[in-house]
Amino acid sequence: VPTRVPVAIIGASGYTGAELIRILSRHPGVRIAQVMAKRAAGQRVGDVFPHLAHAVPGDPPIEPFDPAAVAATSRVAFSALPHGDSADVVAALRAKNVIVLDLSADFRLRDPAIWAGWYADADHAAHPAPTLLHDAVYGLPERHRAALRSAHLVAVPGCYATAAILAAAPLISAGLIVPDGIVIDAKSGASGAGRSPSPATHLPEAGEGIRAYKVGGTHRHTPEIEQELADAAGRELRVLFTPHLVPMSRGILACVYARPTDPGRDVDAYRAALATAYAGEPFVDVLPPGRLPDTAHVRGSNRAQVTAVFDLRTGLVLAIAAIDNLVKGASGQAVQCMNLLLGLPEPQGLDQLALFP
Amino acid sequence: VPTRVPVAIIGASGYTGAELIRILSRHPGVRIAQVMAKRAAGQRVGDVFPHLAHAVPGDPPIEPFDPAAVAATSRVAFSALPHGDSADVVAALRAKNVIVLDLSADFRLRDPAIWAGWYADADHAAHPAPTLLHDAVYGLPERHRAALRSAHLVAVPGCYATAAILAAAPLISAGLIVPDGIVIDAKSGASGAGRSPSPATHLPEAGEGIRAYKVGGTHRHTPEIEQELADAAGRELRVLFTPHLVPMSRGILACVYARPTDPGRDVDAYRAALATAYAGEPFVDVLPPGRLPDTAHVRGSNRAQVTAVFDLRTGLVLAIAAIDNLVKGASGQAVQCMNLLLGLPEPQGLDQLALFP
Amino acid sequence: VPTRVPVAIIGASGYTGAELIRILSRHPGVRIAQVMAKRAAGQRVGDVFPHLAHAVPGDPPIEPFDPAAVAATSRVAFSALPHGDSADVVAALRAKNVIVLDLSADFRLRDPAIWAGWYADADHAAHPAPTLLHDAVYGLPERHRAALRSAHLVAVPGCYATAAILAAAPLISAGLIVPDGIVIDAKSGASGAGRSPSPATHLPEAGEGIRAYKVGGTHRHTPEIEQELADAAGRELRVLFTPHLVPMSRGILACVYARPTDPGRDVDAYRAALATAYAGEPFVDVLPPGRLPDTAHVRGSNRAQVTAVFDLRTGLVLAIAAIDNLVKGASGQAVQCMNLLLGLPEPQGLDQLALFP
Amino acid sequence: VPTRVPVAIIGASGYTGAELIRILSRHPGVRIAQVMAKRAAGQRVGDVFPHLAHAVPGDPPIEPFDPAAVAATSRVAFSALPHGDSADVVAALRAKNVIVLDLSADFRLRDPAIWAGWYADADHAAHPAPTLLHDAVYGLPERHRAALRSAHLVAVPGCYATAAILAAAPLISAGLIVPDGIVIDAKSGASGAGRSPSPATHLPEAGEGIRAYKVGGTHRHTPEIEQELADAAGRELRVLFTPHLVPMSRGILACVYARPTDPGRDVDAYRAALATAYAGEPFVDVLPPGRLPDTAHVRGSNRAQVTAVFDLRTGLVLAIAAIDNLVKGASGQAVQCMNLLLGLPEPQGLDQLALFP
Repeated sequence: VPTRVPVAIIGASGYTGAELIRILSRHPGVRIAQVMAKRAAGQRVGDVFPHLAHAVPGDPPIEPFDPAAVAATSRVAFSALPHGDSADVVAALRAKNVIVLDLSADFRLRDPAIWAGWYADADHAAHPAPTLLHDAVYGLPERHRAALRSAHLVAVPGCYATAAILAAAPLISAGLIVPDGIVIDAKSGASGAGRSPSPATHLPEAGEGIRAYKVGGTHRHTPEIEQELADAAGRELRVLFTPHLVPMSRGILACVYARPTDPGRDVDAYRAALATAYAGEPFVDVLPPGRLPDTAHVRGSNRAQVTAVFDLRTGLVLAIAAIDNLVKGASGQAVQCMNLLLGLPEPQGLDQLALFP
Repeated sequence: VPTRVPVAIIGASGYTGAELIRILSRHPGVRIAQVMAKRAAGQRVGDVFPHLAHAVPGDPPIEPFDPAAVAATSRVAFSALPHGDSADVVAALRAKNVIVLDLSADFRLRDPAIWAGWYADADHAAHPAPTLLHDAVYGLPERHRAALRSAHLVAVPGCYATAAILAAAPLISAGLIVPDGIVIDAKSGASGAGRSPSPATHLPEAGEGIRAYKVGGTHRHTPEIEQELADAAGRELRVLFTPHLVPMSRGILACVYARPTDPGRDVDAYRAALATAYAGEPFVDVLPPGRLPDTAHVRGSNRAQVTAVFDLRTGLVLAIAAIDNLVKGASGQAVQCMNLLLGLPEPQGLDQLALFP
Repeated sequence: VPTRVPVAIIGASGYTGAELIRILSRHPGVRIAQVMAKRAAGQRVGDVFPHLAHAVPGDPPIEPFDPAAVAATSRVAFSALPHGDSADVVAALRAKNVIVLDLSADFRLRDPAIWAGWYADADHAAHPAPTLLHDAVYGLPERHRAALRSAHLVAVPGCYATAAILAAAPLISAGLIVPDGIVIDAKSGASGAGRSPSPATHLPEAGEGIRAYKVGGTHRHTPEIEQELADAAGRELRVLFTPHLVPMSRGILACVYARPTDPGRDVDAYRAALATAYAGEPFVDVLPPGRLPDTAHVRGSNRAQVTAVFDLRTGLVLAIAAIDNLVKGASGQAVQCMNLLLGLPEPQGLDQLALFP
Repeated sequence: VPTRVPVAIIGASGYTGAELIRILSRHPGVRIAQVMAKRAAGQRVGDVFPHLAHAVPGDPPIEPFDPAAVAATSRVAFSALPHGDSADVVAALRAKNVIVLDLSADFRLRDPAIWAGWYADADHAAHPAPTLLHDAVYGLPERHRAALRSAHLVAVPGCYATAAILAAAPLISAGLIVPDGIVIDAKSGASGAGRSPSPATHLPEAGEGIRAYKVGGTHRHTPEIEQELADAAGRELRVLFTPHLVPMSRGILACVYARPTDPGRDVDAYRAALATAYAGEPFVDVLPPGRLPDTAHVRGSNRAQVTAVFDLRTGLVLAIAAIDNLVKGASGQAVQCMNLLLGLPEPQGLDQLALFP
């Protein structure tokens, strides 16, 4: 019997922390050795999340964060802390050689100047741990699998970014769409806003309507989308990304609009390119012609549904991706990355089927 | 005391018929003289729609359609029948000089060839009443007010089309955006699919997810959007329109993406152009900078919320409109048109505030 | 033209305040002269509630509360402040002879000792204005119409209480059910919890589940239900009331379970008794046999749907009522009471049909 | 390596069939050998349920029902067919010695006369397979574990019945509540109505309201609740059961109201009795004082949350249970029963944590 790898979950009182517990507690290759949080320290997981009362044997109390304790016990740590808070924790853990999967945005952008342009605030004028930036691997296995196998610090992608990149990158890489002028219109369930109540996610306000927010290229997932699509294009590019809040708990649907490099291709060429790019991928389903992604079909699973269509009338391309924002868009993807860097089978512990209806 | 104009509602068993009853029963300038339907004939309105049990005094039985009876009693008729069915009814009523507001798609497209390209089916190879097409006025008061004042046949716009045109047309008319390559990403509540149950609107399937449908330029509201935007542009154009089904009952949010004709304009120029275009409009609110349209804020009202933003980073324009698909997107707009052609005050009977939360 | 009565709305930043503005701004007998609030003072109504931007001409700024200013301008004031806060405001207004409709719980319980048992807290060990208690009339027109006609202080009932009392009281008054052992199982939309965000009404937590809360007779609407049903019974009684939070914005459905005083009655006797009790009532619909109350059919309207069934197998009675918690359960009912005390037609300004679907 | 038991799923196109596939495809002790359906035969599971495209290796076509083929291949069959249809299938399978878990109502009632009173229709005047009735074991492990270990035909309980019995039966068995006059007020998500679209589950009609249905003791889960509670009581009894449709996909919350046999007990005695009864139960969580069942906390899991409170003021008892109607209320419970009769560990394959939020 192989020893299970001891892992720590830091930031257990939010939704991505809860999803890490849900997934890792059933993962045959690891053992949740430590559950830590700031405010929730002292409570049990089952107090904070009743649905997880039976996840960790004995439902032990949540501990306060202590990097030395993590290093003494766990080989891998997941940080589900907010951006800004996470960087210091990651630095402390890396200093003690703990492998870290960071679900915050702190290590997603390779260029600290770009980080500063989007994230600098009163507390952090500059990136708190810039020397770690070049160690971090962007945790999208479909694009960085080789680097992830030897990574020690993984920057788990944003939920919107995951959906947008999965839909767009292969079409750019294959030279099928023009990398300029790409529009991404994305829709998210309310869990993407986190567990802190706010007017925007108050059920009476949010439950029976839809609205865009952070329009005009102001959402912080924009630069990571651009970074990854620029990699695919081999040159800089910018995208117009518009997020929406939809009256549901989970799910992201991203629509990517682009111009083809050659309007004369077969109408199915774009979908076929996705199928080629994702052949053999354990978690990306390229849907057959006539079927369309639906967030209801990936709820709770690590799978992404993608497709692309070419509109003969306008000569434009639409690529679509659906994911669960908390799984493939966060905690599931983090586990997928962990499997890669630990040399475990990539899909291990991630075979949950979607919960439908 | 002026006499109330007698009106007939035909097709009272669907949602747009119900909304006509809701609005017209409280309209001080008209009197619901006749309520007709096919399948529901013999039942009372309150049987078919319990919330309307008190709308029409005495809640009389719904009558089967009879054009002679309509002509004998009503000066104005609203047809809320499905497209295809509606054209014959409209023709019969127009032959008897009844003023008709048709909520179906049958008279929205001026060119019968375009109609045939989108609507021809086994029952109707060609438009059933082509001679009436040039009499019909497209019922969007914000663009056809003058013609509507003397109209006898109004083709009430589609719900998606209303939202998309309200957001885009003034920017095209003002020469601010390039009329080619416009992308419209629109999201609708489930009432847009009508009252007939279907798998796509079955609560367990639709209630906790979002998905696009009829992608790739196949939705039938596309040609009417193109017709109206072409009017604004002074030349032909094509748009890529993608509809989505959102887990809510009412509301449409349309996002229009376009390239500016001059990328050097002030960032607020696009919103300002909407404000200029809609100055004095009784039902269009151009939101101040920093506020964004939300379908929850127009539920049950005839108001549209619109805005536009310029994304400095990509040099693209986003215009957004939110409406209630059954009110400004259907029955409310029909009443607004009726007010115009009857010479009544345009907002009469349409001052319902949105129901929020 | 009769002069419109000037009214003040105090506490305009919550949902019941907003509903008062929605209703009163369209009421032909009154004029919203003053809109006041604590935190929201200085903002406009349209800033706080975008759907009301056009409700009050000119959308003037919200004023801070000032009883002298109210007395100088308005004949009637509505207090939509939280309980505890409201009593002082009401006292100040009554001292200046302003007619007050108080939507809080502060004047609903006639007995200050009972008030203290349910509402006393660190700030208020005893009722803040006990001398006003005997002036207050419980604002349920179906039970206190005569007293309301001459009232100067109306305690508008709680939302749950309205539904429960409408279903149960006539059956008790008629001697058809045993006043002891009554169980009330009620379900509410999230707007009943008010506009302040909280974990319990955070969309991801509340949007896809149902749960009871404040079980075991701890919800504060219990004593007002008991007070009114005791009136109907002519003696003291106690009820077991269980509230639930349902994933929707508006609506209360109350199921009342009771034992019949005579199990041998006709099965339709209970429904028939409701029909007799509510004959002529402008806002209570006793549904015909075979139809059942549905909160979706009263959304946005001041109507209540009620019915009762007798279960032959167990010999128990079930009475059901559906209302909109913010209209008949709060602001609509307040306006209905105002109409009575001002001598206006009781349904004036309250003819809004429900918004369905 | 032990051989996996080959199982057949019959009726794979409905929600309970889908949940059987979701659960059994991840069950280490069995192998889905056959998937059968009537209408859906010829399609693949992934066509009928996209979220299950990867559940069964190769996603083979669904076969038409053929009892000989089942007997030749599978040791165990699950029938997820509608009642009435299921009995014949079950009889054919039992004739060939296939172990059957029937999710329909056909074998839940031990007395064919009671069956006839509730289920007889034009097609079936009497029970289609009465001789099998005494072989069938009611599949509620918490009450019939010993019999289930040797069962060959299991009648899997109804979803409402599961919740109601779990809440009430231990209190009756322990002599704590009076078996007469029990009221069960239960609330269900729309998936309980099955996958066929209908007006009652059309999103615009059902999505933003709550309503009772089949009131007055007419719902067919009533007699199975009575049968099981009568067992607990040791004598006949009748319950008043009222189901409700809630705007969500999954979940049942059942509130059971009863009189205590001794009003003088400690307030926590009822909850404590549940804790005693369910000590060691793998799937029933008796919540600590102060916490209440929430269907959102059991979505997708086989767990039930239960509690009970005593209302000192009225002297009445309220017991509450929350389950996922498709898991503990149907397919999960079926698998739990299968584990018992196959001698597998009872929780095997059922350790899915709830999906929250």
